[in-house]
Formats: sequence, C-alpha cells, structure tokens
Amino acid sequence: MSSTPAYAALKAKGKVNPFSIDRREPGPNDVQIDIEYCGVCHTDLHFVNNDWGMSEYPIVPGHEIVGRVSATGEKVEKYKQGDLAAIGCMVDSCGTCQSCQDGNEQYCLRGMTATYNSPSEDAGGVTFGGYSKCIVAHEDFILHVPESLEITGTAPLLCAGITTYSPLRNWQIGKGMKVGIIGLGGLGHMGVKFSHAMGAQTVMITNSESKAEDAKLLGADDVLIASDTGAMSKQLGEFDFLLNTIPVNHNIDSYLDLLKIDGTMCVVGAVEPLNHVNAAQLIFGRKSLAGSLIGGIQETQEMLNFCADHSIVSEVEVIRMEEINDAYERLVKSDVKYRFVIDMNSLS
Amino acid sequence: MSSTPAYAALKAKGKVNPFSIDRREPGPNDVQIDIEYCGVCHTDLHFVNNDWGMSEYPIVPGHEIVGRVSATGEKVEKYKQGDLAAIGCMVDSCGTCQSCQDGNEQYCLRGMTATYNSPSEDAGGVTFGGYSKCIVAHEDFILHVPESLEITGTAPLLCAGITTYSPLRNWQIGKGMKVGIIGLGGLGHMGVKFSHAMGAQTVMITNSESKAEDAKLLGADDVLIASDTGAMSKQLGEFDFLLNTIPVNHNIDSYLDLLKIDGTMCVVGAVEPLNHVNAAQLIFGRKSLAGSLIGGIQETQEMLNFCADHSIVSEVEVIRMEEINDAYERLVKSDVKYRFVIDMNSLS
Repeated sequence: MSSTPAYAALKAKGKVNPFSIDRREPGPNDVQIDIEYCGVCHTDLHFVNNDWGMSEYPIVPGHEIVGRVSATGEKVEKYKQGDLAAIGCMVDSCGTCQSCQDGNEQYCLRGMTATYNSPSEDAGGVTFGGYSKCIVAHEDFILHVPESLEITGTAPLLCAGITTYSPLRNWQIGKGMKVGIIGLGGLGHMGVKFSHAMGAQTVMITNSESKAEDAKLLGADDVLIASDTGAMSKQLGEFDFLLNTIPVNHNIDSYLDLLKIDGTMCVVGAVEPLNHVNAAQLIFGRKSLAGSLIGGIQETQEMLNFCADHSIVSEVEVIRMEEINDAYERLVKSDVKYRFVIDMNSLS
Repeated sequence: MSSTPAYAALKAKGKVNPFSIDRREPGPNDVQIDIEYCGVCHTDLHFVNNDWGMSEYPIVPGHEIVGRVSATGEKVEKYKQGDLAAIGCMVDSCGTCQSCQDGNEQYCLRGMTATYNSPSEDAGGVTFGGYSKCIVAHEDFILHVPESLEITGTAPLLCAGITTYSPLRNWQIGKGMKVGIIGLGGLGHMGVKFSHAMGAQTVMITNSESKAEDAKLLGADDVLIASDTGAMSKQLGEFDFLLNTIPVNHNIDSYLDLLKIDGTMCVVGAVEPLNHVNAAQLIFGRKSLAGSLIGGIQETQEMLNFCADHSIVSEVEVIRMEEINDAYERLVKSDVKYRFVIDMNSLS
C-alpha cells in the first residue's frame, strides 16, 4: 500500500507501526474488515484541518465504515469471513468503568478510543480510520450489518445515524409525541427518518424553505421555517422534544420557546460554547437543554436492526477517493444530499 | 389603614378597588387570612426597585405568607376560622390547561396570577401581597400549615422552600444519590435541608469558606469550596444532581464538570441569560441543564407536610415592618442567615 511522505518519514524514524495506516495484524479477539464504503462526516474535515488543535498527522479519517470480514482472530466467535460488518466512531474503551458496564462506551470514563486520531498502542501512536482498504478492531466494537440494508446508505448510519437515534431512544420518543428536528443536513435527515419511524409527529425546523419538499419526502409531517416568526409563534409550547443538529454556535431562544412544559432540547451538532442561554426560559417551564454523543455499541447494533426492520438508510452521494477534496469543499457549503460516501474500491 | 400617596391618587381617580391593598371582601370560595408573618424574598426587592421593568406601583410585596384564617366564604369546606394557613407565590390560575390539570399551576399556560403585582380583576388592577395585615384568596390556593411547625420559620417555606423541594422531588432525589447544592443563601440552605432529609449524600458547594461550618449544621455531609480547583477536580463526574441557587449570571463550566454521565444541573436562582454554556460539556456526558419554578399547590402542601414530618423550617431573622429598608440593604449584601421574616403584628 502507498503511504504519505509524512508517514514515510515517521516510518523511517521508527515512530510508527508500519502496518498501522492500513491495518494491524489481527490479534486473537480481532476482526479484520475489507472496507467497501466509508461515509464522510464533517468531523473528518475538522480533523484534516486541525480545527480543534488535536490532530496528529498523518491522519486517516473515516468512522462510518462498512465492509466484509476478511479475517478473524482465533478467539472470535461472533464473526466469520464474508460477514457484512461495520465500525462506527469507537474501536475500544476500558470495558470496566460504570459507563462501559452500562453499555455507554461512548462515555467511557477513561476515554473511549476513537476510530481515528486517537492514541492507542494498537496503532502507530494514533488510530487510523476508514478512508482505507482495511481495518482491524476488537470484535466487541464490530457491528453486524443486516444483509437487507442497501450498503452505500448504511455507512453513514454508523455516525449520523446513531447520533440521532440514541437521543430519540434515550428520551423515549414515540407515538403521541411531537418532535422537532432542527437543521436538515447529514444528522437532521436521519433524525427525521428515525423520529417518523418511531411514530412521533415529526416536524422539520429549518431556515431553508427550499428544503421543505425534501423534508416531507424524508418523513416529516410538517415543516417549520425558523425565520418565519409568525409560523414559529403558532407552535409555541407544542413540542415534547427537539433534536438540534445545527453544527455551530447559535441563539437557541426561539427554539426553547417551542418546547412544552418539561420538554427537552438535545444538542448533537454544536460542540462549541453557546454564548447565550436564557435561564428564565428553562425555569418558566421546567425545560431542559441537554446533549448527546453517538451511542453505545449495543445501541448501535439495535439501530442497525431497527433500520433493517424499517427500511431506513441514509441518503448519499457516492464518490471516488480522488474526489474527496471536492467533497470537502461542497461539505463546507452544505452542498450534499445528505452524506458523501466513498467507494473504497476507488482507492488504488 | 394607611395608603401611599400614589395609591391615594389612583383611588381618587376610581382606578383601584379601595379595599385591594389590604383585602377584598371574601367571595363564596375565598379564605381570608390574618397574616402573622411574611418572609422577605429577593424577588420582593426586584419588584420594589422595578429591576425587571414590570412593577406596577403601588406594590405590596410578599409571597411567603403565614397566618390564621379569619373568615371563609359560604362554599369553603377545607378551612375554618382559626386554622393556621399559608399562601405562597400564586393566588390563582386558569384551572383548565394541561399544566393546571397536572397540578403544575406554576406553569399555567395562560399565566398564573402571582400573589403580588399580577393583573387581576379581583384586586385593584394588580394583586397585593403579604406585607399586610390581611389577604384573601380562593381556597384552592390556600395551604394548611401543620400546627407542629415553628411559625416564623414556616413563612419562607412558601417560596424558598418549595423552590428547592420541587426540583429535588421532580428529579427523584433519594438514597444512593450524591447531590450538590450550589450557593448558601435563602434557597440554598433549604436545598441542603431537603436533600439531606430525602436521604441523599448532600454537598454544599460555595465560594465562602466561612459558610462551611453552617452548611454542616444545616445537614450537609460535605462542603466543597468552588474556588478550590484542587478540591473541585477530586469530585469531577461524581454528582447525580446539582441544584444551582446562585441568583445571577455566572460561568457554569466548573459545575457541569462535577456531574456524572446523565446528570442534571437545575437552575433555580438566575432568571437571566447565562452568557456562556459549553454545549460540548452537555454532549460528552449526555448531561442536562434545566430550570424549575416554585412548585404546584398540591406539591407545596406535600412539602409542608414533609417539613412537619422531618422537623424542617427555614432559618430566619424576624424583623419589624419598619426595619424592611435596612433588611433590603442587608439582603443585597447577602447579610442574612438565611431569610428575613416580617412580624406583621408590627404593622400599625
């Protein structure tokens, strides 16, 4: 396999495991997956650009990984060669803390090992992700992919899917509830599909009138244009739950006003400080502002099974590996419906 | 009874009910209470100063009211003359909306009628509160006061008490939980007493080392000095619930770090915008930032009964009516342990 000059330089200094970019040799509990498709998450671009000041180059991004099992360690019992399998945002966690014991590996108190750019002795200093031909991870962090799922649209379920599914499940969304999904992008379009499939009255809340038709095709019962103060005022206090997928700092006042008494707005997009939260809105209605991060491994498997049962996959544009820079440029402009997925057979 | 010049002027114009400052005549479902003690809440001072731009002068503040029933309307069945009774922050609500039907009159969707400075046809334009000899309200908004409760310390239960009791009940605080009460003032000292009585491991979190001893006397198992970063870092991720009674905008980052996965911090003090909330802290731990307002009528009665069962009252300094301006000055400096209560017999 080819490697970047930076990687070659590190390799020459003995600083990295020469196998690490593509794969480590499978250990006794490891599963090796030949990657067929990998989704492109906005997080990938943040790491490529070192937006968060924590990138360790060389980086192999990608945490929406689907492929077929090509090798298994001697102790692996749950997977065999040829199985359709997936890896999401994590490849390891301590396994012993309360979060791990509760099946919330994403909140591992010692810090989960992310699929890429995460310090790990198993990799060359940091883990390498799914923009690759092959990946190896402990079987506990591998997911079964139901064969009925359309494979290209399955890749984004591993991040965009579980990030929206998990909070909807945690706050027990179902029939008789009114749910608003704020923002129609990679996360938002999955939120609409899941909320609809869970039986809730689902409203897409967006600033883009042009997205209204799409939102209804995705399963929204109604579309609310956030900039239309008249329309917003008609739905004050009507929502049991809001899933906020807007990826940047923004004023949440008008959204909190949409919540019922005891309602919750869960933020899954913006991982940055909100510079204005009106405590009075929380107090005068016992409302909650919450956050949620991906989901646990068992819950991710449940999500994939739910998708198979409800014929849900992500809406994707399949690209070749060499188109990734163009894809990143379009991603910045939100010019994708609704997730790029790389065909890994295009990686030479 | 005497009246202010402004009130006299309004009266001359026929704009106010001449009886409204002291009492209206009891209607068939009304209870009249001769007020013995009325607590002094910081909200009173905000209204006196028109800090929130919504004061309608003349104002009679006071919503922590305890006294004896002196008259009852012909249809009143739950109260009789001589009963020890109380009124808190509300004297009416629509009674028909979902919140009222759920027993959450404080969140009445049509707006509850506050005990003072709230528009009402029953009063002279706005309601008048407890800094008075007498008050009249519908029996549904009157509380029974168990005779075993020490009466001066009972008055603040009607606001400071229920404001802290209600969220602790709503988030089901009890044995096996670790609860932090942030801020030791009128609200905070009640939060410590309730959390302790509910069986939770209770930690007072304060910036004032001088309050540590008091906090333990009030029932805190431990005291955490918020400015001691070393001490704070030892309790990261340990709290199930935080009750934040700080009455002004402040940075909540260090408090959110104290919460466990899935933990909640409930704000009951600051009714103003928080100008910095780190969404990442909510996301990386599925934490919630919530708010809560006083409590419903049935819950307030439950709180009073709980206080009788657990011998809980507020710690108070009893003052005479003519000392109120000095008391307000001390209130601004947090120079009170922990609530002023006016002896209404001092009102000539």
